[in-house]
Amino acid sequence: MQAARLHEYTDDMANALNIDDVDRPDATRSDHVVVEVEGAGWCQTDNHIIEGMWTDYVDQDLPMTLGHENAGRVAEVGGEVETVEVGDKVICHPVMTCGTCRQCRLGEDMYCENVSFPGLTTDGGFAEYLLTNDRAVIPLPDEVNTTEIAPHADAGITAYHAVKKAAEKLNPGDHAVVIGVGGLGHIGLQCLDAITAAEITALDLKESARELAADLGAHHTVDPSGEDVPGELDDITDGRGVEQILDFVGADQTTSLGPDIAAPGGDHHVVGYGGHVHEPSQTLVDGEFGFRGTLVGQYTELQELVRLVDRGDVDLKTSVYDLDDINTVAERLEHGEIEGRAVITP
Amino acid sequence: MQAARLHEYTDDMANALNIDDVDRPDATRSDHVVVEVEGAGWCQTDNHIIEGMWTDYVDQDLPMTLGHENAGRVAEVGGEVETVEVGDKVICHPVMTCGTCRQCRLGEDMYCENVSFPGLTTDGGFAEYLLTNDRAVIPLPDEVNTTEIAPHADAGITAYHAVKKAAEKLNPGDHAVVIGVGGLGHIGLQCLDAITAAEITALDLKESARELAADLGAHHTVDPSGEDVPGELDDITDGRGVEQILDFVGADQTTSLGPDIAAPGGDHHVVGYGGHVHEPSQTLVDGEFGFRGTLVGQYTELQELVRLVDRGDVDLKTSVYDLDDINTVAERLEHGEIEGRAVITP
Amino acid sequence: MQAARLHEYTDDMANALNIDDVDRPDATRSDHVVVEVEGAGWCQTDNHIIEGMWTDYVDQDLPMTLGHENAGRVAEVGGEVETVEVGDKVICHPVMTCGTCRQCRLGEDMYCENVSFPGLTTDGGFAEYLLTNDRAVIPLPDEVNTTEIAPHADAGITAYHAVKKAAEKLNPGDHAVVIGVGGLGHIGLQCLDAITAAEITALDLKESARELAADLGAHHTVDPSGEDVPGELDDITDGRGVEQILDFVGADQTTSLGPDIAAPGGDHHVVGYGGHVHEPSQTLVDGEFGFRGTLVGQYTELQELVRLVDRGDVDLKTSVYDLDDINTVAERLEHGEIEGRAVITP
Amino acid sequence: MQAARLHEYTDDMANALNIDDVDRPDATRSDHVVVEVEGAGWCQTDNHIIEGMWTDYVDQDLPMTLGHENAGRVAEVGGEVETVEVGDKVICHPVMTCGTCRQCRLGEDMYCENVSFPGLTTDGGFAEYLLTNDRAVIPLPDEVNTTEIAPHADAGITAYHAVKKAAEKLNPGDHAVVIGVGGLGHIGLQCLDAITAAEITALDLKESARELAADLGAHHTVDPSGEDVPGELDDITDGRGVEQILDFVGADQTTSLGPDIAAPGGDHHVVGYGGHVHEPSQTLVDGEFGFRGTLVGQYTELQELVRLVDRGDVDLKTSVYDLDDINTVAERLEHGEIEGRAVITP
Repeated sequence: MQAARLHEYTDDMANALNIDDVDRPDATRSDHVVVEVEGAGWCQTDNHIIEGMWTDYVDQDLPMTLGHENAGRVAEVGGEVETVEVGDKVICHPVMTCGTCRQCRLGEDMYCENVSFPGLTTDGGFAEYLLTNDRAVIPLPDEVNTTEIAPHADAGITAYHAVKKAAEKLNPGDHAVVIGVGGLGHIGLQCLDAITAAEITALDLKESARELAADLGAHHTVDPSGEDVPGELDDITDGRGVEQILDFVGADQTTSLGPDIAAPGGDHHVVGYGGHVHEPSQTLVDGEFGFRGTLVGQYTELQELVRLVDRGDVDLKTSVYDLDDINTVAERLEHGEIEGRAVITP
Repeated sequence: MQAARLHEYTDDMANALNIDDVDRPDATRSDHVVVEVEGAGWCQTDNHIIEGMWTDYVDQDLPMTLGHENAGRVAEVGGEVETVEVGDKVICHPVMTCGTCRQCRLGEDMYCENVSFPGLTTDGGFAEYLLTNDRAVIPLPDEVNTTEIAPHADAGITAYHAVKKAAEKLNPGDHAVVIGVGGLGHIGLQCLDAITAAEITALDLKESARELAADLGAHHTVDPSGEDVPGELDDITDGRGVEQILDFVGADQTTSLGPDIAAPGGDHHVVGYGGHVHEPSQTLVDGEFGFRGTLVGQYTELQELVRLVDRGDVDLKTSVYDLDDINTVAERLEHGEIEGRAVITP
Repeated sequence: MQAARLHEYTDDMANALNIDDVDRPDATRSDHVVVEVEGAGWCQTDNHIIEGMWTDYVDQDLPMTLGHENAGRVAEVGGEVETVEVGDKVICHPVMTCGTCRQCRLGEDMYCENVSFPGLTTDGGFAEYLLTNDRAVIPLPDEVNTTEIAPHADAGITAYHAVKKAAEKLNPGDHAVVIGVGGLGHIGLQCLDAITAAEITALDLKESARELAADLGAHHTVDPSGEDVPGELDDITDGRGVEQILDFVGADQTTSLGPDIAAPGGDHHVVGYGGHVHEPSQTLVDGEFGFRGTLVGQYTELQELVRLVDRGDVDLKTSVYDLDDINTVAERLEHGEIEGRAVITP
Repeated sequence: MQAARLHEYTDDMANALNIDDVDRPDATRSDHVVVEVEGAGWCQTDNHIIEGMWTDYVDQDLPMTLGHENAGRVAEVGGEVETVEVGDKVICHPVMTCGTCRQCRLGEDMYCENVSFPGLTTDGGFAEYLLTNDRAVIPLPDEVNTTEIAPHADAGITAYHAVKKAAEKLNPGDHAVVIGVGGLGHIGLQCLDAITAAEITALDLKESARELAADLGAHHTVDPSGEDVPGELDDITDGRGVEQILDFVGADQTTSLGPDIAAPGGDHHVVGYGGHVHEPSQTLVDGEFGFRGTLVGQYTELQELVRLVDRGDVDLKTSVYDLDDINTVAERLEHGEIEGRAVITP
């Protein structure tokens, strides 16, 4: 089968991945599931993987097929799989988990002690077929378009997970800020609107992104390039400050905003990455302020997100590309030229 | 009356405060309480105030009497005070709150929109008398020694508050690390032991502090100067990592330890201050790791701490000094020469 | 001034209350607030008070002015009131609290150790003026109609409080049942819709109430008289059961439904009263099922509800009556003939 | 192999079970684990099963081997089991779960949609061998005595689970009541002491049980036959009431105590069963009081309990019997003549 593979780390996105001919994976364990990929979302993290930014954090063996936002149809199942059958439409939680370690037992899929992460640590879904297991797949109704839903497998769940953590501390009328209304941010904003009654302010440098935010439910939008962000938010919140900040960018300029706009006890959820968090300890103490990283999400959260999508609460902006055009996608995302979320179809 | 007052910011601790003769405060509002101070703890924050480190965070009018860890006897009450009477022994929550703003109504005393903080923003307790209000005082049984209990008013509540937040995520057998077994740390360690069944590891450069930690319930101690801290904690936790870190130091060297020793989803509670937090956003994301500031604590938490003290669960190491020796205390703390907590008696 | 007062317990609603001429209350404490009543909601609890159902639970001195759902304008304030001024529009939290007991400090207004409950234990708002305090009043924007918002002071906050407790355990796609779409239920249903993404099923014997429920956001309605309720809910939930049940009736027939429709770990929130809860202990154990009583709500919850009203998320159905017609209201409610919520205007 | 089996429901405990010769179970699935039983605790629920009390709640096919509190050594494993090996000592969580349904994914083992409960719905551990799966077994250090630890598999986890729920609402100095210091209660009491700083009062009719309670950490004991329980608890709690009640009996006399002794917002956790809960809805409303059923516990909770045992925080009183004497045990427990927990060794 065809697969888009990374052979060496590079900053040259135009030639990042090779289209190779490789063997189709087989179900060799009782819980294996082979999925015929119908959609695989391209993620900023793919660019970061190509640049080698994950080598300090995980083990990677090159060449490796990328692609960690996958949906499609079940092509083959191991001998004891009971949750799906060949032909079923599924969306794939990003990781394959063991189901027996303490972290799995607590529902913390991302912390599984025996985890595999297709597209990050093993072969992923920029290919005709993907090997995963029965603990990763969520069956979808037959009327769902698997190409269009694919980005929820990672962009969606990551945004939803961050929002769910923030929502625990958002009472009606409290204020939330969404920084960055791109692939993840535009999902996060809709999730916030669906599960809280918070006042939402969206920050983005692009006017089109701010307009999208307003369409999707943001009560206020702010252009950080032209406006005094802390002053604007002081007005918007009547001096109370922002209870929860969702930072889908994670750059130095966005993390440093947090302490200036947060209400006492506020949290700055770091979802995007690339920059640093850097503040005096005293600033965290004085405002009882927190920087809280957030990593993908649980399988059950992806189930919940699928329900939100099903209810019409979350709408995804996608643009579809052929596997052959994959490096074009890599390059365009690098330059901020992708509208919504790009999905690759093999 | 006599009061130890700061006239100008300085690094010269030996001449930091002046003993001035000032008017005794009166109860001019219906909720006012004037306390005859019998003990006022000296805190690292007093050194930081003297150095001017708080001018960016709060409004201060010099000269100002310092002292925010106070206990004593009620000397006068306003016309509608019903919770205490003249002669009652009391410990004082550090701040005077309004009781009507939303933050007060949520129990978040430190976030009160109309807060006064004696010793930080108004005259404090290094004096014969202190002006506070009925929402700040907690009555004590007559057998309690108010001089010895005074440091719980700030060191105690701050340590307890941080521990209570950490305890929410500590199941039996989970691992907690206490960084710095000084004035706050030695209280925090005992609180951890009292309200959780976590495995506790204490880190301190001083051997005497590590010995104290072991006496007070730490299951393991580590000398960060001589040992490979991440390696040691990997052994102690069987590779699982530390679920909750309580950093009573807050220096660059201690905050940077967090990501290397934390379990997935772990928190690094920043209690002490002086240094910075500084990490790549990716590190927070990869470990779903959080830096969470912690600011003093709630009135009800001071009540709970008083109960722990009453049960014999928390024991405080104090050394007592006269008001006249106050600059000696300032100097000795600066050089790390105070054992346990210093208490000033006017 | 005129006031509608209960002189003796009775089942004769047509002659329940007397319109008496009594003295206007004065602000005699520094925190007192006298409100000129512009709306006072009539509640099922008023009927229960008249019948003597509360004598076993609280102390009552007859004659007493009823009325515990009050809104209006500030007419006089005590000497240290800073949150409102004469002329301000306010809605009144049902109870006067001390602000200094531990329960108040925890934000648990209803558990205040020194509580007064106007309309239940002291004179209430079916009168031209009401005596309350600064911890009870919430300022309203001048454009709010105080007559129409009055029922939120008790019906609203009680429904919201129950929903907020239920919402903690309702993930997107989980199922909630609202039993009884009357004065409280129709508010509760809208609150559920505003702060969760749960699937909502409403039960009511009256077709008009079920139609109202569907208008207000219920995804399903069931007529308990004609349908097999457990069977219907088994279909609606695909056999999963109902995670949270909000019982605004509290009769024997409604509480007994709980265990038959609940998902494992489900809660049956008892808001209405009149009947009993009665089940084998084994039934609670087998389903890890809970009957959880719910009592009015916190001051901060009333603030949050006001924000929901302000956002347009909660709409109240009211019908307005003169003080002279108060016994007509009592009688009509007894016979289920009041649409929405009746409000008395003095 | 030999197995103690129930052939028909009966009240005649002296002839309740037959010792039959049956086939040893085999590992026929990849996740199966066959355990050579070294200890199987006898539980009040076994008496209830024999009496037919569970036929309304679960499907049972007689004859069936009872025994749901099991520990021993791994005798055989399925082809993909990686968590244990033949020869390993293990304690068995009571249920076999699928690991893929939403409830399993949330960590709620007891709510598994595909659950088997050996000893309640399939053959249990009063036999030489038990069939379970890799998601049910917890490896134990080789020095642990599997006969003595066996009762923790159900009595222990059930007590711990109830305590853990109660502990969420128990601050230092709050009051907890343990009703019934028998097989479960004496474990629950120690767990309370280990993970909270609550004041504990134990109620039991037997003097020996009250003495045991005092030895194990109860701060107060009350004899419900001779004393005015609400009056006693009013004294013990200084009129505040009891925040959390753990009812290990669940009889009419014990559930009716709850509302009379509870603090506002208090919970009565129903762990034992046999009687009913029966109260006016108004009583639940007035005290914001809850009756909350509790069902065994999660796999991760059994891990946590094993850690508490390992730390020496929980000590179990057991008496050991041969499989041949099993009906004697049934009879003695029925008459309240078992000290601590009876364990059967095949």
